[in-house]
Amino acid sequence: MTRLALHNYYRSSTSYRVRIALAMKGLDYDYVAHHLRHGEHLEPPFRALNPQGLVPALVLEDGSVLTQSLAIIEYLDETHPEPPLLPRDARGRARVRMIAQMIACDIHPVNNLRVLTSLRTLYGAGDDDVAGWFRHWVGETFGPLEKILAESPHTGRFCHGDVPGLADICLVAQVANNQRFGVDMTPYPVIARINAACLDLPAFTKAAPQNQPDAE
Amino acid sequence: MTRLALHNYYRSSTSYRVRIALAMKGLDYDYVAHHLRHGEHLEPPFRALNPQGLVPALVLEDGSVLTQSLAIIEYLDETHPEPPLLPRDARGRARVRMIAQMIACDIHPVNNLRVLTSLRTLYGAGDDDVAGWFRHWVGETFGPLEKILAESPHTGRFCHGDVPGLADICLVAQVANNQRFGVDMTPYPVIARINAACLDLPAFTKAAPQNQPDAE
Repeated sequence: MTRLALHNYYRSSTSYRVRIALAMKGLDYDYVAHHLRHGEHLEPPFRALNPQGLVPALVLEDGSVLTQSLAIIEYLDETHPEPPLLPRDARGRARVRMIAQMIACDIHPVNNLRVLTSLRTLYGAGDDDVAGWFRHWVGETFGPLEKILAESPHTGRFCHGDVPGLADICLVAQVANNQRFGVDMTPYPVIARINAACLDLPAFTKAAPQNQPDAE
Repeated sequence: MTRLALHNYYRSSTSYRVRIALAMKGLDYDYVAHHLRHGEHLEPPFRALNPQGLVPALVLEDGSVLTQSLAIIEYLDETHPEPPLLPRDARGRARVRMIAQMIACDIHPVNNLRVLTSLRTLYGAGDDDVAGWFRHWVGETFGPLEKILAESPHTGRFCHGDVPGLADICLVAQVANNQRFGVDMTPYPVIARINAACLDLPAFTKAAPQNQPDAE
């Protein structure tokens, strides 16, 4: 039996999600950094751990490996129920998972480093093209998300009521990513307000990219 | 109170996922078709239902709307527990969600119609370029997925043991999509075997694209 170990990268937003969940649950872990821009996640040692070669990967005390950030977070929530990261009612859980997946399925994968790199190598995209691509897909989802959050009676201090959870975790990690590509947050006052409320909490700041050991 | 209504498109693989889950649960619903290639999902009436303008959207008996296919399926599983679409143990659920998210986060969004259309309009990609892009991202995930399925003692007749569930739902919908872009399944014998086992089940065939009222 060893300690939990999180294989991750400070600036990876999917890694950031899992770090927030671990911090909210009060779980300690070994921090194992893989420098994505140097391709360390594609080397055989990490591929043996996660054949996809993607961070984050969480190694449990018995050596088994969990991957995919939302699957990891649901596992942490099921095995360490306090504080809960999902509401108790099925409708509420569906709404929180919907918001999380709007970000995790419709924004992040399309704007991931490997996709942006493909745009450069296949189509000669430059920095401005890549930033434009990134901002376009953020807008395609943040526009509807802002509307959903602004109009729903379920929105509170956080995405769902006054307790932070899975949706807020994804929101904060995405907003941090947006800042690197100059996304204007003016059209998204509710998202910005929820992001600020989260960053008032120690778990979110402890997990933030700039506070990790591999931050540059 | 009205009947369940599924807003979807026969060839959308995320719609196909939800149709399989509804069929496995034995739930009847009204089929509301939106022709994606004609942009019907982007018109105001559907945008009022789902601000994202994406299918699928499931309208519940009381008129409330659920979106995001995996959130919808987890909701159906929580509110109609039999037959279960996730294992009973937390580790098993994490593994099934991991496989589902490998497909739902790492393949589908990058190969979605709106992304392929952007490659055409922004970079002048032609049919061969688009098909190559599609096949590349399938391979980046299906390679590791094949390895995970082939090497795990948890793999059975289906992705996780001998009962079909959430992972199989995503797998079958992705394999159907692959066929439209000529993905060679030879390197993926376990995935192909599981796909065939699923298509032996009435719920999967009932939900298949070619068996929907809007199929062309």
